[in-house]
Amino acid sequence: MSEVAGRMSIQEGAKYLERPQMGRGILLGGVPGVAPAHITILGGGVVGANAARIAAGFQADVAILDVNMDRLRYLDDVMPPNVNALFSDRHTIREELRLADLVIGSILIRGAKAPHLASREDLRLMKPGSVIIDVAIDQGGCFETSRPTTHKDPTYMVDDVLHYCVTNMPGAVGRTSTFALCNVTLPWVLRIVSMGLERGLNECEGIRTAANIVAGKVTNRPVADTFGFDYAPL
Amino acid sequence: MSEVAGRMSIQEGAKYLERPQMGRGILLGGVPGVAPAHITILGGGVVGANAARIAAGFQADVAILDVNMDRLRYLDDVMPPNVNALFSDRHTIREELRLADLVIGSILIRGAKAPHLASREDLRLMKPGSVIIDVAIDQGGCFETSRPTTHKDPTYMVDDVLHYCVTNMPGAVGRTSTFALCNVTLPWVLRIVSMGLERGLNECEGIRTAANIVAGKVTNRPVADTFGFDYAPL
Amino acid sequence: MSEVAGRMSIQEGAKYLERPQMGRGILLGGVPGVAPAHITILGGGVVGANAARIAAGFQADVAILDVNMDRLRYLDDVMPPNVNALFSDRHTIREELRLADLVIGSILIRGAKAPHLASREDLRLMKPGSVIIDVAIDQGGCFETSRPTTHKDPTYMVDDVLHYCVTNMPGAVGRTSTFALCNVTLPWVLRIVSMGLERGLNECEGIRTAANIVAGKVTNRPVADTFGFDYAPL
Amino acid sequence: MSEVAGRMSIQEGAKYLERPQMGRGILLGGVPGVAPAHITILGGGVVGANAARIAAGFQADVAILDVNMDRLRYLDDVMPPNVNALFSDRHTIREELRLADLVIGSILIRGAKAPHLASREDLRLMKPGSVIIDVAIDQGGCFETSRPTTHKDPTYMVDDVLHYCVTNMPGAVGRTSTFALCNVTLPWVLRIVSMGLERGLNECEGIRTAANIVAGKVTNRPVADTFGFDYAPL
Amino acid sequence: MSEVAGRMSIQEGAKYLERPQMGRGILLGGVPGVAPAHITILGGGVVGANAARIAAGFQADVAILDVNMDRLRYLDDVMPPNVNALFSDRHTIREELRLADLVIGSILIRGAKAPHLASREDLRLMKPGSVIIDVAIDQGGCFETSRPTTHKDPTYMVDDVLHYCVTNMPGAVGRTSTFALCNVTLPWVLRIVSMGLERGLNECEGIRTAANIVAGKVTNRPVADTFGFDYAPL
Amino acid sequence: MSEVAGRMSIQEGAKYLERPQMGRGILLGGVPGVAPAHITILGGGVVGANAARIAAGFQADVAILDVNMDRLRYLDDVMPPNVNALFSDRHTIREELRLADLVIGSILIRGAKAPHLASREDLRLMKPGSVIIDVAIDQGGCFETSRPTTHKDPTYMVDDVLHYCVTNMPGAVGRTSTFALCNVTLPWVLRIVSMGLERGLNECEGIRTAANIVAGKVTNRPVADTFGFDYAPL
Repeated sequence: MSEVAGRMSIQEGAKYLERPQMGRGILLGGVPGVAPAHITILGGGVVGANAARIAAGFQADVAILDVNMDRLRYLDDVMPPNVNALFSDRHTIREELRLADLVIGSILIRGAKAPHLASREDLRLMKPGSVIIDVAIDQGGCFETSRPTTHKDPTYMVDDVLHYCVTNMPGAVGRTSTFALCNVTLPWVLRIVSMGLERGLNECEGIRTAANIVAGKVTNRPVADTFGFDYAPL
Repeated sequence: MSEVAGRMSIQEGAKYLERPQMGRGILLGGVPGVAPAHITILGGGVVGANAARIAAGFQADVAILDVNMDRLRYLDDVMPPNVNALFSDRHTIREELRLADLVIGSILIRGAKAPHLASREDLRLMKPGSVIIDVAIDQGGCFETSRPTTHKDPTYMVDDVLHYCVTNMPGAVGRTSTFALCNVTLPWVLRIVSMGLERGLNECEGIRTAANIVAGKVTNRPVADTFGFDYAPL
Repeated sequence: MSEVAGRMSIQEGAKYLERPQMGRGILLGGVPGVAPAHITILGGGVVGANAARIAAGFQADVAILDVNMDRLRYLDDVMPPNVNALFSDRHTIREELRLADLVIGSILIRGAKAPHLASREDLRLMKPGSVIIDVAIDQGGCFETSRPTTHKDPTYMVDDVLHYCVTNMPGAVGRTSTFALCNVTLPWVLRIVSMGLERGLNECEGIRTAANIVAGKVTNRPVADTFGFDYAPL
Repeated sequence: MSEVAGRMSIQEGAKYLERPQMGRGILLGGVPGVAPAHITILGGGVVGANAARIAAGFQADVAILDVNMDRLRYLDDVMPPNVNALFSDRHTIREELRLADLVIGSILIRGAKAPHLASREDLRLMKPGSVIIDVAIDQGGCFETSRPTTHKDPTYMVDDVLHYCVTNMPGAVGRTSTFALCNVTLPWVLRIVSMGLERGLNECEGIRTAANIVAGKVTNRPVADTFGFDYAPL
Repeated sequence: MSEVAGRMSIQEGAKYLERPQMGRGILLGGVPGVAPAHITILGGGVVGANAARIAAGFQADVAILDVNMDRLRYLDDVMPPNVNALFSDRHTIREELRLADLVIGSILIRGAKAPHLASREDLRLMKPGSVIIDVAIDQGGCFETSRPTTHKDPTYMVDDVLHYCVTNMPGAVGRTSTFALCNVTLPWVLRIVSMGLERGLNECEGIRTAANIVAGKVTNRPVADTFGFDYAPL
Repeated sequence: MSEVAGRMSIQEGAKYLERPQMGRGILLGGVPGVAPAHITILGGGVVGANAARIAAGFQADVAILDVNMDRLRYLDDVMPPNVNALFSDRHTIREELRLADLVIGSILIRGAKAPHLASREDLRLMKPGSVIIDVAIDQGGCFETSRPTTHKDPTYMVDDVLHYCVTNMPGAVGRTSTFALCNVTLPWVLRIVSMGLERGLNECEGIRTAANIVAGKVTNRPVADTFGFDYAPL
């Protein structure tokens, strides 16, 4: 799903930069004679890399920030030349906010809240009408000013910066997302079918971890806690 | 403006293929494991070439159709390899409608109505939820089913195919469009300033052709006709 | 050798699609105005990736199928944009057979027979004159209809589909293959020379595994079985 | 047809460099660790440019030679970086023959015999088993040692250099060639239909030039001469 | 020679940005984690386009400015995506001076003095240690602060901006330049040889224009004027 | 720092190939009509890969040599097509020395002296005026004829081959290098700050290995040996 969300973030950004959508009224790729938009992508994981590739294809100027040097080296190897892979520190983030027409928040730390990389104060650095797409919203978002929105009412303005923080972004391209999801889940389904559920739970770490409810009991503590059920260890 | 409209047509197409916008719910570029969309571009002029480049950058499978072999050869030279330059005939157009998730109409014949390349009947070949962006709408559109729409209410459905036929598309990215327009008009303004208007009208074909109103008289027949004024030849 | 076979498979495919060779009479890359061939590559390992790169260089439309999502993501990162990396399931394989002018079988599972990905029945989906190159033939082939052939008599037809199933394909480009082979084997030769054979067999897993005959005794069971010799464990 | 012949010349070259076909036994693109073939293309027109693009896609080292500096500059702009555009003089041609594994002759001068760029003597510079594809054979060929061959018996050896000089090369990929030909001829057919033949012959230079036989009389002098008919001027 | 000078300008720029050469101490292409240099190229002709391509290959961020929209469109078609083709006006030039680490002056107007695009005042916009390479110096240079230098003593500082204004830049790569020059002049030499000088002067515009001295008389007025000889019309 | 040195090696090579610098007087990328330089890079690690990418961007013909087949395969995947990844053996190295205008020595074996890949004898294979940049000089250099030089007096000639063996090359682009260095060291500084030095030394392998002096005692044996201090194990 990260790949879907990453690629989709750029097309949402393109849309909301249009004037009737309250953006700055600029075209991501510019045209011959007029400079393209500057896009800053915070986080160089799967979401960020997919966003960067599509943004580059749009002919925009792209910066992708991360703290992992090995990842930055790999991105430098495989990305088109209009993507700059930059080390993410406070100074660089603030520089980028100043330049950016579109900022993608794509820091996803497995099982943890996303860190806030930009405060409300920082928004003042940004140009009026610039756009933030916070893909990390499902983990709390990586901007202080992010709060979850829906496909029905996807955006709001804070200090003249348009925020798009739709949870479950991939839902909008359900056909692509469903295929993508099946590709990842199918091998597990086949394994359960061939092993039988019981043996699967006993022998296969992956299946055990994924089990939320077994024989009517909730076997995953966070799920039990969230919904107020009793937790029954496997 | 053609360049703005061409590039913008793909981001509009990406948007309207989203499910909440009534499209098929697919992502233009697909993701690893899931095939990308097929985009058919009717017309290989400036609009079409700009659309093709952005579509290719989105990682989609792209076909661009034209009847001018020299143009097809040039496009083949400069386009990325996921763009196929095809000769445009009735058979190929119908094949493409069958394959396409997104069709861009970009036949602009200077000073003439755009030809209808697809009839209402032909729409039946298309998949439900596929999208038509008719950039040629300002010259009447290149689909039988095209009729002008606005940025406020941009789309309508015909036989399950979503139509986007906004006149003056570049208006949505006014900032980029204004710069682009200035780049093209500035040299003329400078010329008028340096020659003076009268000499400019006398000596310069380009200025004469462009003059709509001179000394309070409408000097351009189509303008005069359209608005019901008297036409005064220069 | 996999790299040689993978790259060579496309030039064989190009050759056998020529009409005098009994193929459909089409040019892999098409020409401006005429669509290129569609090439389907079953298996995204070393053979498949090398085939895909050459096929893409030919300007063809290429799909490469695999079940390993990590591999598909990497291929998506490094392949040109006219290569689509697709998840391999029964449905997609059948879709691809319908589209393909050329199918490369490149599923190599170390030490195991290649799985049959297409039955004789499935061949009916394919266009008359389309071509199958089964690089997996040394492990039994990945089509039900594959049977080994030779460089002398390399092809046969089944249901109007041309099959090329030459074992030891790299033999045809012996000069390139020999250098490639030396590059891989040279480090082992040097190691044996520097360690001496006895110490090499004792201390080095790689040398031990590779030893077929030691001091006149056959020390590799499959070799012994195949040729009817006694097997002597090391 | 030049585009078909140009692209096809490389796949023929690839084939005949295989050992069973009497070539050097090398793979055009090499493999990681082993250098690719060097391909020299004499003539940077449509044939040569199409050959160069496919050769580059094969990952070979490519040199394309021409005497037209404007053409060399354009080729430098649009070709991949493994194609070097070189000025064609006697010194450079001889240097290239020394390096080349595959030489494509693609000098086509409209309505004139192709010049001989390499003498029999020059062949001695070439490596044994290297391959010449003379696409210019229909105009007499650009090697002294070229003589026409057929798809049935396409090659012969001179001084250890394999020659492929098939006239009407595009015939082997008839399906692609037919579409390509129709794309070019269709507009003329439509013009004749809409104008009527007589008016077409009177008013349209292109139709007049192309007319070989009108009302049972041969109206094209070379055709009349070749076949021994009376020539009747239009 | 323009091509040599254009390509060479970037390698001179790279050199003088090194700290021991008095530049800012930055690497044109940056490294993973650190942003590359910004290079501004004033003029999109042959010099500028060749500079842009090499600069892009260095992985820098490149802007190339021109006033000719058709040229900008072509550059946009054939340049890598890290080159932005911008319309050249006073506002954009000043913006670019602010951003640039390296500025290439490449406005060559045939037979006219290059216009001054930046005044001494404008240099204050530039970062200390940034570098100007004025390839237009042979026509007077396109910076107010440019004055001719030599390969021996190539640079000087004005307001902390390093200037490199070597006349006859291609002299430093004499081997490449000599071949390049011969390629362009050889066809004329051959023509003179085959026509004879007299007929050449009478019949061939190109030869006549190029003649500086004929039969001991100076036949080119600027040459005569410059060196104080009598001018004798042909 | 390896990335800085690798990328910088090509711009140094470009500079010293200029005639006033005593090189052959050729331009790395050639120009349309004139062949580019041939660059040989010995070692495909980080230094070599960064050198290769910049060299390729210069439009040169590039060969990168290594003995690690996995590395060669990866380089083949991600490098532009004018880079050939070759297996490094004595024969190929000598072939390359014959062809090369510029040779980059980039074999860095962690904590060991670089091997000598070319003897003084081998220099005779090279063309007069060709250039060697030995990036491995900090580990002793990979040419027999290498000896350390400085940014002040960077080069010397041996048998007509120019040698550049500056130790601490990145010093010349101090701004870029400093940022690069900070990006790598910053995470360690933060770790020491948050853990405290003592705990850091106890619990963290990386910090312990990096400690040269602790509480006034030299805790790193090579440092102690080199400077004649007592060594005190941690």
